[in-house]
Amino acid sequence: MLALDGIIQLTEEDEFAYQEMMTHVAMFSHPSPRKALVIGGGDGGVLRELSKHSCLERIDICEIDRTVIDISKKFFPSTACGFDDPRVNVHVMDGNAFIKGHSSEYDVIIVDSSDPIGPGEKLFEKPFYENMKAALTGKGIIASQAESIFLHPKIVAGLLKIAKELFPVHGYAYMLVPTYPGGNIGVCLGSLAPKVRKPARFPDENIKKTLKYYTPDIHEASFKLPAFAEEILK
Amino acid sequence: MLALDGIIQLTEEDEFAYQEMMTHVAMFSHPSPRKALVIGGGDGGVLRELSKHSCLERIDICEIDRTVIDISKKFFPSTACGFDDPRVNVHVMDGNAFIKGHSSEYDVIIVDSSDPIGPGEKLFEKPFYENMKAALTGKGIIASQAESIFLHPKIVAGLLKIAKELFPVHGYAYMLVPTYPGGNIGVCLGSLAPKVRKPARFPDENIKKTLKYYTPDIHEASFKLPAFAEEILK
Repeated sequence: MLALDGIIQLTEEDEFAYQEMMTHVAMFSHPSPRKALVIGGGDGGVLRELSKHSCLERIDICEIDRTVIDISKKFFPSTACGFDDPRVNVHVMDGNAFIKGHSSEYDVIIVDSSDPIGPGEKLFEKPFYENMKAALTGKGIIASQAESIFLHPKIVAGLLKIAKELFPVHGYAYMLVPTYPGGNIGVCLGSLAPKVRKPARFPDENIKKTLKYYTPDIHEASFKLPAFAEEILK
Repeated sequence: MLALDGIIQLTEEDEFAYQEMMTHVAMFSHPSPRKALVIGGGDGGVLRELSKHSCLERIDICEIDRTVIDISKKFFPSTACGFDDPRVNVHVMDGNAFIKGHSSEYDVIIVDSSDPIGPGEKLFEKPFYENMKAALTGKGIIASQAESIFLHPKIVAGLLKIAKELFPVHGYAYMLVPTYPGGNIGVCLGSLAPKVRKPARFPDENIKKTLKYYTPDIHEASFKLPAFAEEILK
């Protein structure tokens, strides 16, 4: 189990649910992603999932804390194996600073952040989303860790408001992660063009064998929220 | 919070998720239910949800433990209000014994049991399901508390195997209940005729106002399981 500042970040038992949904909902929504960026995600799990997409030519990751990367490589090799992909380029710096130096470059950006306290706080604010939007190609998609609609409805609503203001296509999807508080967490999607509620591409047989959570069916189903959540986010 | 034998049964914060999905997936799958039975469910929450269906003429409940009913009425009035419906008839006895005395009588049977240890154990075994099948009308549906596919895959698989053997239509749906271990729990559906994966009826405006979890969309989505769960249950 990896904990940062006393908060569980991943357990090997159920990390697949989070990593797969954070990555593949955005990736399979994009018809032809070639370049992806991960902000945060120092455990390497999102990289591992991205590396399953042979269409990607380059995968950048910007993680603020080198220790997270080192510890993950040492203790969580089945997660950190994502760093082994030769397409991966590691940048150890603040994600908000990194993103400002890039323009119209990424097809998919995934923000695998911790909670909005401490170093992760800026990653839940509008300027960061504006910078991400500028770093996307014309049909780009962002996917960011968006907390649980049951436990943190205000945070979810805040993120989705930003996504609505900046992206013509947007949505909130959730996944089951039993070891997280409340047992679920969500991902906020913002897209400049592709639909996100249905996949544009489908896992081939090779990818399918590696997936324990994501299916095209659950991609669509994960956007169907309980009535109270629809009300909060409408 | 109500705990039995040290295990959380309900909290007022999120009991709606469980009660609504346990009740309405089965109820809205049936085109014209007139008589319903609850086995267990002494807190009254499933009764409260059943009472929203004006098409019901009679609602029986068979709870083994009168104390659960009394405590719920005293401390959880917003849940136990289900007992106030004049269509409700309370039977305090063992559910397995009760069901044997009934034949071709119920359109919908809901088993709101505790975990399969102690008094609830028999309610997870095939003879009980055979007795329930015999107590259903020709187009009847059963819905039973079926544990979490993440935490108790063997129990879920066992129940679904029974449902497959006895019912031409069957399925497992899940719902988010943050205060339960793992944050989710499921319902096992068995139907003699109606489809269960899509609603046959839809909430009218009056019911809709009272629903915090159930929607026709989430009815369908709740049957879409993570890849690993599809594999276990196929």
